[in-house]
Amino acid sequence: MDFEYSDKVNELRRKLQAFMDAYVIPNRETFEQQIAESGDPHFYPPILEELKAKARAEGLWNLFLPDDEYGAGLTNLEYAPLAEIMGRVEWSSEIFNCNAPDTGNMEIFAQFGTEEQKKQWLEPLLEGKIRSGYAMTEPGVSSSDPINLQFTIKREGDEYVLNGRKWWTTGASRERCQIFIVMGLTNPDNPIKHQRHTMVLVPRNTPGLTVLRNLSVMGYTHNDGHAELVFENVRVPVSNRLGDENAAFAISQARLGPGRIHHCMRSIGAASFALELMIKRATERSTYGSRLAEHGVIQNYIAESAIEIEQARLLTFKAAWTMDTIGKKAAMNQIAMIKVVAPRVHTNVVNRAIQVYGGEGISQDTPLAHMWATGRMMHLVDGPDEVHIRALARSLIKQASLAKAE
Amino acid sequence: MDFEYSDKVNELRRKLQAFMDAYVIPNRETFEQQIAESGDPHFYPPILEELKAKARAEGLWNLFLPDDEYGAGLTNLEYAPLAEIMGRVEWSSEIFNCNAPDTGNMEIFAQFGTEEQKKQWLEPLLEGKIRSGYAMTEPGVSSSDPINLQFTIKREGDEYVLNGRKWWTTGASRERCQIFIVMGLTNPDNPIKHQRHTMVLVPRNTPGLTVLRNLSVMGYTHNDGHAELVFENVRVPVSNRLGDENAAFAISQARLGPGRIHHCMRSIGAASFALELMIKRATERSTYGSRLAEHGVIQNYIAESAIEIEQARLLTFKAAWTMDTIGKKAAMNQIAMIKVVAPRVHTNVVNRAIQVYGGEGISQDTPLAHMWATGRMMHLVDGPDEVHIRALARSLIKQASLAKAE
Amino acid sequence: MDFEYSDKVNELRRKLQAFMDAYVIPNRETFEQQIAESGDPHFYPPILEELKAKARAEGLWNLFLPDDEYGAGLTNLEYAPLAEIMGRVEWSSEIFNCNAPDTGNMEIFAQFGTEEQKKQWLEPLLEGKIRSGYAMTEPGVSSSDPINLQFTIKREGDEYVLNGRKWWTTGASRERCQIFIVMGLTNPDNPIKHQRHTMVLVPRNTPGLTVLRNLSVMGYTHNDGHAELVFENVRVPVSNRLGDENAAFAISQARLGPGRIHHCMRSIGAASFALELMIKRATERSTYGSRLAEHGVIQNYIAESAIEIEQARLLTFKAAWTMDTIGKKAAMNQIAMIKVVAPRVHTNVVNRAIQVYGGEGISQDTPLAHMWATGRMMHLVDGPDEVHIRALARSLIKQASLAKAE
Amino acid sequence: MDFEYSDKVNELRRKLQAFMDAYVIPNRETFEQQIAESGDPHFYPPILEELKAKARAEGLWNLFLPDDEYGAGLTNLEYAPLAEIMGRVEWSSEIFNCNAPDTGNMEIFAQFGTEEQKKQWLEPLLEGKIRSGYAMTEPGVSSSDPINLQFTIKREGDEYVLNGRKWWTTGASRERCQIFIVMGLTNPDNPIKHQRHTMVLVPRNTPGLTVLRNLSVMGYTHNDGHAELVFENVRVPVSNRLGDENAAFAISQARLGPGRIHHCMRSIGAASFALELMIKRATERSTYGSRLAEHGVIQNYIAESAIEIEQARLLTFKAAWTMDTIGKKAAMNQIAMIKVVAPRVHTNVVNRAIQVYGGEGISQDTPLAHMWATGRMMHLVDGPDEVHIRALARSLIKQASLAKAE
Repeated sequence: MDFEYSDKVNELRRKLQAFMDAYVIPNRETFEQQIAESGDPHFYPPILEELKAKARAEGLWNLFLPDDEYGAGLTNLEYAPLAEIMGRVEWSSEIFNCNAPDTGNMEIFAQFGTEEQKKQWLEPLLEGKIRSGYAMTEPGVSSSDPINLQFTIKREGDEYVLNGRKWWTTGASRERCQIFIVMGLTNPDNPIKHQRHTMVLVPRNTPGLTVLRNLSVMGYTHNDGHAELVFENVRVPVSNRLGDENAAFAISQARLGPGRIHHCMRSIGAASFALELMIKRATERSTYGSRLAEHGVIQNYIAESAIEIEQARLLTFKAAWTMDTIGKKAAMNQIAMIKVVAPRVHTNVVNRAIQVYGGEGISQDTPLAHMWATGRMMHLVDGPDEVHIRALARSLIKQASLAKAE
Repeated sequence: MDFEYSDKVNELRRKLQAFMDAYVIPNRETFEQQIAESGDPHFYPPILEELKAKARAEGLWNLFLPDDEYGAGLTNLEYAPLAEIMGRVEWSSEIFNCNAPDTGNMEIFAQFGTEEQKKQWLEPLLEGKIRSGYAMTEPGVSSSDPINLQFTIKREGDEYVLNGRKWWTTGASRERCQIFIVMGLTNPDNPIKHQRHTMVLVPRNTPGLTVLRNLSVMGYTHNDGHAELVFENVRVPVSNRLGDENAAFAISQARLGPGRIHHCMRSIGAASFALELMIKRATERSTYGSRLAEHGVIQNYIAESAIEIEQARLLTFKAAWTMDTIGKKAAMNQIAMIKVVAPRVHTNVVNRAIQVYGGEGISQDTPLAHMWATGRMMHLVDGPDEVHIRALARSLIKQASLAKAE
Repeated sequence: MDFEYSDKVNELRRKLQAFMDAYVIPNRETFEQQIAESGDPHFYPPILEELKAKARAEGLWNLFLPDDEYGAGLTNLEYAPLAEIMGRVEWSSEIFNCNAPDTGNMEIFAQFGTEEQKKQWLEPLLEGKIRSGYAMTEPGVSSSDPINLQFTIKREGDEYVLNGRKWWTTGASRERCQIFIVMGLTNPDNPIKHQRHTMVLVPRNTPGLTVLRNLSVMGYTHNDGHAELVFENVRVPVSNRLGDENAAFAISQARLGPGRIHHCMRSIGAASFALELMIKRATERSTYGSRLAEHGVIQNYIAESAIEIEQARLLTFKAAWTMDTIGKKAAMNQIAMIKVVAPRVHTNVVNRAIQVYGGEGISQDTPLAHMWATGRMMHLVDGPDEVHIRALARSLIKQASLAKAE
Repeated sequence: MDFEYSDKVNELRRKLQAFMDAYVIPNRETFEQQIAESGDPHFYPPILEELKAKARAEGLWNLFLPDDEYGAGLTNLEYAPLAEIMGRVEWSSEIFNCNAPDTGNMEIFAQFGTEEQKKQWLEPLLEGKIRSGYAMTEPGVSSSDPINLQFTIKREGDEYVLNGRKWWTTGASRERCQIFIVMGLTNPDNPIKHQRHTMVLVPRNTPGLTVLRNLSVMGYTHNDGHAELVFENVRVPVSNRLGDENAAFAISQARLGPGRIHHCMRSIGAASFALELMIKRATERSTYGSRLAEHGVIQNYIAESAIEIEQARLLTFKAAWTMDTIGKKAAMNQIAMIKVVAPRVHTNVVNRAIQVYGGEGISQDTPLAHMWATGRMMHLVDGPDEVHIRALARSLIKQASLAKAE
């Protein structure tokens, strides 16, 4: 269980950090401005394309992808500290073609896609030319228990006919999101509940598919967006199926592990950045005759934040290491743990930083308010905290029973 | 210490609740839509004027004002449950001419204004024809310790000359905010630190005054807004002074007590509404074979929320009662307590409700995300939590020392 | 909902506080010493008898009993602040014949006892000549769900035959505990689960009954004790039944409301005392160049403690008031709330005080360690926190459903 | 940063765990009984001597000592998981000669002792033949800020004369504690505050030294005890000085790092054991128709406990690793972090387990109540939590300032 950064990782960290400092941080305002000027919150700002080109030229591209052929060939443990650095700016992952849900989508295309599917969708995704959506969550049902999903995919001859609604399809609010991976019921009466659903590929311009609207996140409209989609008798050829019929849950599971590591490390990166800001502010301002940094309560905020961040980082490294060396199943409990811990650290630390900044902290003048909103979203993305706590507890109880039975 | 609602209060509660149900709740969307369609987030929507007329016609007007002549003549304890009802919809207080900061401003106009000032500003405020701003907080300094305030007001002959910046001036982003009460240093070298500042009235259109921009609140742009103001050699006649020279702190203190009761009761109203939504959702959705309402963790959220709300309400009643019957000074500790407690209950309960709603909770489809943002702001409005905790502790320690010395 | 102390209550508070200051606080050590010297932790120390005589002479006797004939005729709301004062010293309630479980036992004797039962047991209890036990909780089953209780009471002719074990029978470790109210299954197959159990009176010296051992509380051995009892074919006449057959749950419910108010107010009294000690210590000691009272973290402890205490007190008053004026059923939710809140305040505040006292706080040199242990016990007495949270949530959900259905 | 257990460590873990299972756990009752029967809580029970002999024979001896010559030659990281296993039974460390404060005392004897001091005291300590005390903390002053220490050590000719009081001298309540390392003021007027104190060795039977009394810990009397010592003109030869004059702080610092790792790992061991008990109980009992393990709130307790333990363990490993590979100074922040985290995990997890056990949890029938008391003590041992939080925050702020200045 060696968490030390290898020379290769340290070199990538150095390059990535330098890139962030040189090109991303100074362009935060440009990014916002280009979008604002376009009048369309989902406008794809030219600065993004510029930065993508630069990043790719420097070899900071597809870092997330463990596959040697398609990506950087890093393990989860090696990629983790890079995701942490990206987490400092909300929209930076896309610069390195490392943003969700495309990362997970590329993984399942690589793993389950036919050669044709790979050619048509994986290749342009790897190039960053198009984006993809993952349409699983549905309005009107508690999707945190996926058994509840109602969307139907019926086979008629050589076609699948899709009907229903999906929402929280991240990325879909931009036109460049060209392909959706859609999960729906193909065998609703199967007594094995986890073998009722299938994944099907639906191109954006397929008749019957409407990108209805964008969902805001705690008041923020994300540039890539989180869309609600309506499918009315949407027809695609059977060859658009991803993986086997009724195998959606298995594919979905395959996708989750690394994605959670990425999310968590970005959250830890956001929290670290907030802690830096907090300390900075605490040393610059004074009340009641002392610098904020000398007030016991502010010291408390700083120390508790550092403790939370350090622990969450080590735990995420362990989850990544376990996934890399033993496997996803062995890492399951650890992944549930970080899925609960990292969003908490994200919102806790940012929330304390906001309090240290006072009114400025809740305004547009610092990135903190937006960072908090993103952290809040992470308590729900890929299942609410409560679902992971439940799963973790049940797994621990089961393990204890098995140990006892031995 | 009788907290029971009198017949008069019950009658007002009934009327107010009926008004909210009949006219406010059903017009939430209209309110948002009229603003959105105008293209200006600070557009004054016609629905507001309509509802104000209706409310006034029903006698639901200036309920906050204890003064029999100008207002409803209610005590703080009597007004508290009405503020709670208004708290259910963010923008509803203005309908009843009960919104901050105009309430506090009207109070100090009534208490410290000259007859001319009352005629010119208090009367149209009481009519709801104009709005007013309270310009105290400054960018660039920790305004939670008001000794830090830097804004200067220099007397030159019969005029005051104002220079500096103010921000978080609530209401100022709408044109109809016609008058600002501005606090600044008139005697910066006074060894008595709390007698260095003066309050001066500045009409909106005074040369040299620029309403620079609006500040967003955790991603939300409020219709009335929170503005940053720039004062460059702004000149007003000496007769525009409110109260005595160097008496700004005393006036500011006079203004605070009731305002905090109002804020806290609105927070409690918001929390109660969130709890209702939480229970509603918990009874409508199911996961893992049970209604959410049957899950122990959700039951926990419901019970803890109810406990927090009930305690905060009683504490606020006690603060109001003490202020009404003994006086503001005697109520000081209790006001500090509710100032800490009510924003916590606001954010805690809304946050739990969001979690129960899942993705929908962070979106624009429920009022919860916006309610949370407002609650988060309340942790900073009128001083951050930490300042009130410090003041309360110091007061308790001092009281203990005095008791011991006796 | 008038919480103000009447003149009568203020007079009793003054007398009780004076009694505590003059006789109880100065005799804390004597109490401990007399027990220690006897070599028997359950020795009944003479100082207790002395203080009881004094208290009775001053009219500070049976204050808890709302019945005018037998007791002081105070309402729950009137008695509450008196219980708070008693809560400052762990063993003081008995001085005033106001200690659990005798208080609750006297209530049900008065309410459900036959004339003969009253004469034999209630009268000496009211005189403080004997003590009584309430044997409900059982080892080996989760008694927090009383349906689980296994103890059997079989009728054979004119006798009941009792078999089983009980524990946590408070008071039973002292010989002077002469009578046990025992709850057991008389109709185990009744489909109405809450009509299976009966209450039966068993004198201490009945053959077959063994007071097996005392249970310690977080390391402390209480003088009155919490005993484990074994019943082996214990026979009592049918006339020893308390109330109707299979009515144990109804009787048990009748007993609970006031008892919870008492417990909670004593917890609040303990917390208030701990806060006083905390402030005292914080003003006497210094670290790093400042008095502890000037450290932000210590100020935080003081302020948060005061806030918790004040809120818990008001909530308990409301529960008492509701019980007095509307009835137990109406007060049910509020009683559940205080049952959760008061033990928390008890342990939270004492825990902070311990931390301020450092090593001394965990030693025998302050009452804090013992106070904490008692507070910890209160999280479990009369059902664990979790059970009350569950009951409260279910009740709120049900109320919401009913409101909706109307 | 490799945290994986080496083969050597795994072999020691296996042996130690087997020893605990075979000899320690089954003798818990014997240990308590032998002490109880002796009538002296500080009686040295024969079972301890027996187990020590066995452990030594198996090579499970002085495992803590990194020194190859005197001890097992393990690094801190290697010893950490062994301390965790010992933490499962409160008194087990002594069996392996690994108990505080002897471990730290042996370390400073080895590092700072003269050959004669080593011969006289270190050797029998390494053999487990005697025990030693570390007399630093004083009654009457806030010893968490050691500058406050008042105890005087005056040089008179070839002797030191010691006067003052010490308390919380762990181990001293047993006769076999033969030597005290005593810290006192030798140069009280030194402007460099951390160079005023000296360490001096005082044998137990030195005239003028009284072991006054034992201090209990949250109601528990520990067998080795925590004593209060009175020194009245105690005279020892100058050769009894440990290290240089006025160097006590430096020596004290040298002692702290590893000791904190040991304490923290034992706390983590205790928490792990409590979690096992919690799960066990949750699977065995039922309420309201479900096993406790199926209740959401209990699942919450289990999952949160596992998350806390896992994070604390990784953090402690990191602190140990840093100390081993970079050095104590580099590990300073991490040691402060675990010093705050581990006692929290200890008390949090045990507290939840108690709640799951109900009344039994607070009684003598499980080890939980005693475990909690020990955990509570750990929030104060080696400085209260607040001191470490303050130190950590100040260090982080300083680091940030330095980084900025670069």
